[in-house]
Amino acid sequence: MADKLTRRGFVKAGMAASAGLAGTSAAAQGDPKITKVQKWAQELGEGLDTRPYGLPSPHETGVQRRRVPWLTADATSSINFTPIHDLEGIITPNGVCFERHHAGVPQYDPADHRLMINGLVDQPLVLTMADILRFPRENRVHFLECAANSGMEWRGPQMDGAQFTHGMIHNVMYTGVPLRLILLEAGIKTTGKWVLAEGADASGLSRSIPMEKALDDCLVAFKMNGEALRPENGYPLRLVVPGWEGITWIKWLRRLEVGDKPWHQREETSKYTDLLADGSARRFSWVMDAKSVITSPSPQMPITHGPGQTVISGLAWSGHGTIPKVDVSLDGGVNWHPARMSGPSLDKSLHRFYFDFVWDGKPLLLQSRAQDSTGYMQPTKDALRGFRGESSTYHNNGIQTWAINEQGEAQNVEVS
Amino acid sequence: MADKLTRRGFVKAGMAASAGLAGTSAAAQGDPKITKVQKWAQELGEGLDTRPYGLPSPHETGVQRRRVPWLTADATSSINFTPIHDLEGIITPNGVCFERHHAGVPQYDPADHRLMINGLVDQPLVLTMADILRFPRENRVHFLECAANSGMEWRGPQMDGAQFTHGMIHNVMYTGVPLRLILLEAGIKTTGKWVLAEGADASGLSRSIPMEKALDDCLVAFKMNGEALRPENGYPLRLVVPGWEGITWIKWLRRLEVGDKPWHQREETSKYTDLLADGSARRFSWVMDAKSVITSPSPQMPITHGPGQTVISGLAWSGHGTIPKVDVSLDGGVNWHPARMSGPSLDKSLHRFYFDFVWDGKPLLLQSRAQDSTGYMQPTKDALRGFRGESSTYHNNGIQTWAINEQGEAQNVEVS
Repeated sequence: MADKLTRRGFVKAGMAASAGLAGTSAAAQGDPKITKVQKWAQELGEGLDTRPYGLPSPHETGVQRRRVPWLTADATSSINFTPIHDLEGIITPNGVCFERHHAGVPQYDPADHRLMINGLVDQPLVLTMADILRFPRENRVHFLECAANSGMEWRGPQMDGAQFTHGMIHNVMYTGVPLRLILLEAGIKTTGKWVLAEGADASGLSRSIPMEKALDDCLVAFKMNGEALRPENGYPLRLVVPGWEGITWIKWLRRLEVGDKPWHQREETSKYTDLLADGSARRFSWVMDAKSVITSPSPQMPITHGPGQTVISGLAWSGHGTIPKVDVSLDGGVNWHPARMSGPSLDKSLHRFYFDFVWDGKPLLLQSRAQDSTGYMQPTKDALRGFRGESSTYHNNGIQTWAINEQGEAQNVEVS
Repeated sequence: MADKLTRRGFVKAGMAASAGLAGTSAAAQGDPKITKVQKWAQELGEGLDTRPYGLPSPHETGVQRRRVPWLTADATSSINFTPIHDLEGIITPNGVCFERHHAGVPQYDPADHRLMINGLVDQPLVLTMADILRFPRENRVHFLECAANSGMEWRGPQMDGAQFTHGMIHNVMYTGVPLRLILLEAGIKTTGKWVLAEGADASGLSRSIPMEKALDDCLVAFKMNGEALRPENGYPLRLVVPGWEGITWIKWLRRLEVGDKPWHQREETSKYTDLLADGSARRFSWVMDAKSVITSPSPQMPITHGPGQTVISGLAWSGHGTIPKVDVSLDGGVNWHPARMSGPSLDKSLHRFYFDFVWDGKPLLLQSRAQDSTGYMQPTKDALRGFRGESSTYHNNGIQTWAINEQGEAQNVEVS
């Protein structure tokens, strides 16, 4: 035991962490920063009354949502992206969860909010927020991914960073009432097979949800990561549709109508459908298939320390379950190495993976591929185009490649 | 199946959710709020460029950390409290994690930060933040509880709300390097049995950690809930000591010294020890025992809806493992009912529990008691005083009682 705790024992044991670090540390030992008592140890810091609600360090202002101006006509009906390249673990902080709005963010008092349940029900209901808070609650962590995430990459590499190729996603803990309980409170008529969920914003955005899903794992959520939903994420009430494309997670939820067939609304006909090679359009493509991306290194997160011990960090997820396995390739998919999964493995949630290796300083072609709990393996982009054609936007879960050059800079590329 | 989906079927099935809700909903149906197209559905909302880092709704400003002025001499060496009464699930948002400082919050550039490892090691090291980021990382959710949480309640009910009786706690997902890997990088001499962890603030706060714990599950963390540690929580680097009292989780971590015995520093001798009835003081009482509290209803969260279907929501945790079981009492501990656990059950993490019941409008004496995975059951306050005496401050994990009156108002009381 004692021998294992000595430095040589550790290095001999082949733990990857030790390689390349000693040199850096030795250099730091001559650093003037450690030869005197630092300024911040000589004076009192800031007291706590100034932070009833805290914010990140001024040195972290770069960790923010970003919009791509050319992508949408204006900022009201638009999208911004989660800075996934700079985040870790699996929880997305509420302040940087990506936003997608079709008519901006409505601001109103939750005391004015109502949720109507009507249509093929025994007793139409109108619930206040106080009513909602009397139903039994559940807590679950789920990813929300826009169907258009990676959509700009269908016809080749375009966006310059993981934030933009894969950042239409976030993952938080929701607290809410099972949709099932609210529908059953109204009583569903035997002819009721679909539910229309409608938002209270000016776009009145609505989607048709089949009854099987509505009665399964959907939540009418009022909290995210412990606190009230943020206005841009549906405050005070949103639908959570685990594993399904984000457009179905109706925000500012004001109405649930039970019907006998789908409504064929704008956002499930002219939009959020997939044009196939034969000219037909795939509709109701709800579930987000298994996908992964290396978040660091990536174009916004180059390797800055030179050759030696290096951490590859990434995210994987599936709308069909959990992610038991991710592989990483350093050579564009020729050879694959099992990644190390870290953190809770939760159903329809982001999963964090790592690959720790000693970089020799030569160019790399980094890829990751996720396999979900159904056995499904994330496909290459070529394979995806083989059965989906060249004209899609949505549901691009193809394998991403980052080319790393000898300076450690990363570029969005594709290998075939 | 069809019959089960009708309203009557739901009520007949005895699901607690339905009782008392129909009346409220019927009232809401006559509400003018739903007879016209609301203002917020007639105009565009706010665009997304205004929120690179988002904040809660203006209607949620009451959900904030609060200081109790009489508790400390000033705001620099002080404490504020997590608003646990208004939170849900198990993740604490970074903006409201309670703060405890001994010399204020030092603000400095992470580029200037160094972590020294010295003492009984084969090779003293000084690591930069860039060095730290090359070690293998882990992700884990853990609660951090101040040893003084509920300390003001030792000699009877004093604080007016769950935020103040139990709010010296938060629970986030940490990303960090196992402390074990950093110590082994330096190489621990066979005489090395203790580690001193020291902070970079002006108080130079430090604590002695036995080697067994240091090599077990401690992390040197740089992220919380996905983003960088907040300045008030140790940015850029803090020690995570799962299950142990918060004072050991050294913030702004600058030094790890390996020694052959504890250092007997101020915060482990004159403070953070427990004066027993015989005049001796219990020292190195590290682990936080199993504990629970009903967060709503509570003095800051009265029942406002009158008799009928009611949700009791609470938190439970243990420094020894998970919480498989919580019981709730409505009558001051005479009868106990099993609570419903909701959300992931993670080691040394907060757990959320619920008890859904129909309130008859009569006074209640609400209590909860947690049992952890070792079988240990949270004691009454009387039992705790029986073996710890009357003079303690720290490690008060006794059962909390809220008295609810006929108006639904809650008061901090004690029953014996």
